Amino acid sequence: MGQTLTEKVLDDHLVEGELETGEEIGIEIDQVLTQDTTGTMVWLQFEAMGLDEVQTEIAAQYCDHQTYQFDFKNTDDHRFLRSAAGKYGAHFSRPGNGICHNVHRENFAAPGKTLLGSDSHTPTPGGLGQLAIGAGGIDVTVAMGGAPYYIEMPEIVNVRLEGELPEWATAKDIILEMLRRLSVKGGVGKILEYTGPGVETLTAPERMTITNMGTELGATTSIFPTDEQTQDYLERVGRGDEYVELQPDEDAEYDDEIVVDLSDLEPLIAQPSMPDNVVPVSEAAGQSVEQVIVGSCTNGGYEDILPVAKMLEGREVSMETETIVAPGSKQASEMLAREGWVAEMMAAGVNFSEATCGACIGIGHVPSSDSVSLRTFNRNFEGRSGIEDDNVYLCSPEVAAAAAIKGEIVDPRDLADELGDLEAPGVELPDEYTGSKTDLISPDEAVDDELIKGPNIGDVPLKDQLGSDIEGEALLKMEDNITTDHIIPATQDILMYRSNVPKLSEFTLSRVDDTFAERALEADGGFLVAGENYGQGSSREHAALCPMYLGIEGVLAQSFARIHRANLFNFGIVPLTIDEETYESIDQGDEIEIVDDVYDAVTSGQEEFTVRVGDEEFTATLDASERERDILAAGGKLAWTKEQAEGSGAAPADD
Amino acid sequence: MGQTLTEKVLDDHLVEGELETGEEIGIEIDQVLTQDTTGTMVWLQFEAMGLDEVQTEIAAQYCDHQTYQFDFKNTDDHRFLRSAAGKYGAHFSRPGNGICHNVHRENFAAPGKTLLGSDSHTPTPGGLGQLAIGAGGIDVTVAMGGAPYYIEMPEIVNVRLEGELPEWATAKDIILEMLRRLSVKGGVGKILEYTGPGVETLTAPERMTITNMGTELGATTSIFPTDEQTQDYLERVGRGDEYVELQPDEDAEYDDEIVVDLSDLEPLIAQPSMPDNVVPVSEAAGQSVEQVIVGSCTNGGYEDILPVAKMLEGREVSMETETIVAPGSKQASEMLAREGWVAEMMAAGVNFSEATCGACIGIGHVPSSDSVSLRTFNRNFEGRSGIEDDNVYLCSPEVAAAAAIKGEIVDPRDLADELGDLEAPGVELPDEYTGSKTDLISPDEAVDDELIKGPNIGDVPLKDQLGSDIEGEALLKMEDNITTDHIIPATQDILMYRSNVPKLSEFTLSRVDDTFAERALEADGGFLVAGENYGQGSSREHAALCPMYLGIEGVLAQSFARIHRANLFNFGIVPLTIDEETYESIDQGDEIEIVDDVYDAVTSGQEEFTVRVGDEEFTATLDASERERDILAAGGKLAWTKEQAEGSGAAPADD
Repeated sequence: MGQTLTEKVLDDHLVEGELETGEEIGIEIDQVLTQDTTGTMVWLQFEAMGLDEVQTEIAAQYCDHQTYQFDFKNTDDHRFLRSAAGKYGAHFSRPGNGICHNVHRENFAAPGKTLLGSDSHTPTPGGLGQLAIGAGGIDVTVAMGGAPYYIEMPEIVNVRLEGELPEWATAKDIILEMLRRLSVKGGVGKILEYTGPGVETLTAPERMTITNMGTELGATTSIFPTDEQTQDYLERVGRGDEYVELQPDEDAEYDDEIVVDLSDLEPLIAQPSMPDNVVPVSEAAGQSVEQVIVGSCTNGGYEDILPVAKMLEGREVSMETETIVAPGSKQASEMLAREGWVAEMMAAGVNFSEATCGACIGIGHVPSSDSVSLRTFNRNFEGRSGIEDDNVYLCSPEVAAAAAIKGEIVDPRDLADELGDLEAPGVELPDEYTGSKTDLISPDEAVDDELIKGPNIGDVPLKDQLGSDIEGEALLKMEDNITTDHIIPATQDILMYRSNVPKLSEFTLSRVDDTFAERALEADGGFLVAGENYGQGSSREHAALCPMYLGIEGVLAQSFARIHRANLFNFGIVPLTIDEETYESIDQGDEIEIVDDVYDAVTSGQEEFTVRVGDEEFTATLDASERERDILAAGGKLAWTKEQAEGSGAAPADD
Repeated sequence: MGQTLTEKVLDDHLVEGELETGEEIGIEIDQVLTQDTTGTMVWLQFEAMGLDEVQTEIAAQYCDHQTYQFDFKNTDDHRFLRSAAGKYGAHFSRPGNGICHNVHRENFAAPGKTLLGSDSHTPTPGGLGQLAIGAGGIDVTVAMGGAPYYIEMPEIVNVRLEGELPEWATAKDIILEMLRRLSVKGGVGKILEYTGPGVETLTAPERMTITNMGTELGATTSIFPTDEQTQDYLERVGRGDEYVELQPDEDAEYDDEIVVDLSDLEPLIAQPSMPDNVVPVSEAAGQSVEQVIVGSCTNGGYEDILPVAKMLEGREVSMETETIVAPGSKQASEMLAREGWVAEMMAAGVNFSEATCGACIGIGHVPSSDSVSLRTFNRNFEGRSGIEDDNVYLCSPEVAAAAAIKGEIVDPRDLADELGDLEAPGVELPDEYTGSKTDLISPDEAVDDELIKGPNIGDVPLKDQLGSDIEGEALLKMEDNITTDHIIPATQDILMYRSNVPKLSEFTLSRVDDTFAERALEADGGFLVAGENYGQGSSREHAALCPMYLGIEGVLAQSFARIHRANLFNFGIVPLTIDEETYESIDQGDEIEIVDDVYDAVTSGQEEFTVRVGDEEFTATLDASERERDILAAGGKLAWTKEQAEGSGAAPADD
């Protein structure tokens, strides 16, 4: 039987297990990436584990989230990250050099390689045939130390693309169509492998818009085969020699198939406040727009901003619409500046920003009250923009530019009809990506050999070994689809404490219930209760680390998002799956007890646990590999890795 | 007897009083400017006074301080300001369009006109022969309503410039030399009038660097005569027809004279943490620099950034030095982008920012702990950068660029020797200032006719009429040179409450004593005690408004900064001058009583007041005009203006 592309890459990196759906496999990691809000903890853990030097082929530390450095804690974090990259042998990308995914794809992403990143949009270079997975920081730490990355073998879904995009429809509309069909839970436990004749009609950057936002489907990752388009892109970024041909076998078998006919697509838009709330732009047309932002790792490339610049050339943005362009990389900015497009956009009324994640996580350009913001980003979770009750729409750069011109949501085809001289800009790659690399400091050039820690950079908190008795109050009962933005918001006032867990923990779940953190600390033990898809969104391990710090010992949810579930194991919190009836039976404030001897049950492989809620008993499931059980029993991955190192006498990460 | 240039302009606008030093005069105001952190209160007061329409020739509302919009409150403020400008007839400059002083000089500043602005650096266009004065918001409100602006006639000092600047010495070094000689108090009660053969060697933008930073001397304003350079600049910005020749009479008499021989100057630097702590750059050389920022209203023009771009072309900034360029206006950005300089700077490793005041007031790019930041700004008051115990140096763009290249403070002449091919960039003006005006919305184009208030935009607090008995605790005793940054910090976490006085007041003087606000509210009445030059720095009226809200009834200080003193009258707080002995005799916590019937004494013109501190009695002086006494007695300017309107039956501002 033939192999899928995914299986080929996994096979090539397999160090443990078999490629059977649902089985745990261990794979070798070639490259890792970290960014500034997850990276400080990664390096503190790297230090705490006593590791000496990065073991992967490439490790890259980017500074992209807090580039405005609105507090000295941000700037201290950046300095610490530079020193850690220097000391341990990673590449360091300075603040202002751009978003990790953009800079990584321009400089390091390579077909057939594996990439693990402490950011949920790590799958971006799947568009280049790289198998790229987002993970919690500690998983990245351990991989960076040379250990395999363990994952449950996902289902592999064939997403067959047919036809060709019509004018004004874009790669963004392909992934919005996927979200419309599958919902934000539709990709959970799956790898989406794109195939079919439509693939060759898409340039590599377009493919990366799709793989980037595959994260919003909940997918483990998304991947494209490689071909002339891939080779072409790699040549243009000056790395043509890294091209490898990668195609699934003709007789490869997939767990499922989805067919998307590109020629059926039209401009789409995700309405507030979930990326899968997708409709044709025409259905939302007429809504006045106060803010338009173009950028992010989804649509912040040179190829994404150029169409906007072309559409705005010689025109002016609406006086009622603040229009901000924040490129994904300084390389893109520099090229657009050199070709005169930055000046054109400024002349049209664009506020041209430094390269940053910025507004996508609520850092800067927070929308005004009761207003509509239209963005080319990947997420519009309620409140993520920095204001509660926000109205954020997601769309392509072309739809964003049309709204900026018109001052309201408009199908760009209608605007073209109205204006008469507005042409569809299409997709254009530069002959050569000429931007300079000044802001990317290689390990050879490193300027630091010791860690530089500011006063806000604390220690890594540790948890004791798992106990036998777990009981406590249901401290918070939550709905479906609680995101990591609910658990630990990433707005600037909170984000700056990412290196200071005791302080950061005060904000845990504050967006759901601002009394939670205090109640949890007082209770010293207890449970979280949630519906489906608990912990969707970013890879931030703080969403497990902070509840751990507050004493939470278990989470009962109808289902868990993949990365967050791994993070719960990594920080010694027991993630138990419950059915809807159980969920309905638990009220906030109920006393909950796990009847089993938890330590014994976890270590012996027991799957069904009895949970007593008041007078009633329910069954909850622990779906975990042996390795995950060991980690949980040890009190988390840091403790487990240390244990392993001591037990084996070897350096922990060489296991 | 001949007239000074200042006297000529004042004479031309005089509506009350005589031009004699120390006498109160009322002058007509031709233009007003406001920015986003002071502007919301200006328009709320405009609304509260029941005024209909702007009465000055030009009113311009800029959005420049909070352009990163870190919080929805910032964005709401901007939207409110747009609506107020639209409703009342002011020009509106969108966030991202640049710093008020830069945009104003490019678009509106004109020789011989008067300008009142709610920003302390309003004197900037003095370099074009405009008489431009910074004031508290309420003074601007009243002037905008058509009323005269009242001021005590300052001394006029002749600053005679001789010779010509040598290579690598710049306009910034002229004003740093003035600060070195005169100190931050040296200009208090004075207008600095520049004369002499050195004047014609300076372009208009260079002159505006000097007049801008004259504010740091405490001067009421600074002004240059007009000549070919002025005409040349006005022609290049497309307003040659606004040129007027303005020169002092040959036999003009000045109160004092200072001679600066430009040919004696060398690159200077203001060390932490006061703008007058000036030494030659060579004396500070060797200090490693973690951050360099080029920009601000002092050195953010096209002409300021071009030299930096030239110095960085083909070079790279030090890997240890984060280098940020934030132009003063989008017009400058657009021109630099169009000419390729933005791309060159990016290639050299510059983080190119949107046009903003930003870092100058601690909003963004806050330095890391224990690090040195070198900036082309005008102020380095301790903590203003957003971190306590900061080490901020002030210098010219050329010195900043040299440090960015070298990674440490270096005299650019030495760096030129070291590198061999680094040439002094000199001063170069563009043939034509070509940047677009898209972001400047004229009253004719206004999109709003009603005010749009977000939930954080509150009402203007009012104070009752002055009472007869003032007594209370000395709630806080402070040193010399307390700045408005101490009284109400302008960092982002605090600045966003500028439109919400009750909330903002919680931060009053928190940098001196974070228990103060709570203690003051509890005490419900009391005094502030300070040394010399109390309230230096910005024009923010919140520095009086918040103490008023907290119940402070009097300030006893050895001397007051001009704008802040006016703000105290405007908000009904009695500013009494004490001598050093009295200052020494008062301890924090002492009970203080003004023995006189305060209302009677203030309204009857009494100058000497008896202050009882415990068992001792001291004399304190109220140096105030009849108008100021009336304002104080009424409970502040808002109440007074309303009283006047009711008494006269006329619209208040037509008085």
